[in-house]
Amino acid sequence: MTRQEVVKTYLKALGDADYETIASLYADNATLEDPVGGDINLSGVDAIREFYKASVALDLEGKLLGSIRVAGDEALFPFEIRINKPAEGAPMAIEVIDSFRFNEEGKVVAMKAYWGPENIKML
Amino acid sequence: MTRQEVVKTYLKALGDADYETIASLYADNATLEDPVGGDINLSGVDAIREFYKASVALDLEGKLLGSIRVAGDEALFPFEIRINKPAEGAPMAIEVIDSFRFNEEGKVVAMKAYWGPENIKML
Repeated sequence: MTRQEVVKTYLKALGDADYETIASLYADNATLEDPVGGDINLSGVDAIREFYKASVALDLEGKLLGSIRVAGDEALFPFEIRINKPAEGAPMAIEVIDSFRFNEEGKVVAMKAYWGPENIKML
Repeated sequence: MTRQEVVKTYLKALGDADYETIASLYADNATLEDPVGGDINLSGVDAIREFYKASVALDLEGKLLGSIRVAGDEALFPFEIRINKPAEGAPMAIEVIDSFRFNEEGKVVAMKAYWGPENIKML
């Protein structure tokens, strides 16, 4: 899979609540920060799988908002994530930029999600 | 200046060929990679000022392509850079994501530009 394909597979799997496919994109020793500087700071694909499994209840939809930028060992992509069924309150959409860092096997070894309060829109 | 204001000042100054204003946004010990994984890998504000000064001849225009994401000590933003007068060939536009990392004084200490061949469009 090219890096572009990994990103597209990821966004489709988010919308399909297909956390096993998402976990398969990550290396065993991967890390995940969502958002960067925030509380969620995971290590290892098992913790990462649980994170996505827990998000199934949120009824997510991910949509690219521009082209995927591939540079060095990373791919960055701007997208909107819709949270149709948040744990509390109304549905919302967040404009995010994700960074995927890849290892030599083409697996994601570090995912960083960049977003802040100003990127949240209530629907 | 907020991080949002730094980003907007940067993009306006790019279009105005105002490299002194751009240099003023950087810390003395800042680094710059454009693109990440590529040849341009600068250290220090003097080298960075020369880089932007040299780009004046390219007649650049920068335009935000979505919201600025502020997270941790970084701001990431998707934008289009138009190169109206490239050294060779026709004008082009590149879809980029820049990452600015800030120090405690609010200066940019590390700039990374993420783009690849797939993000270049001839105009």
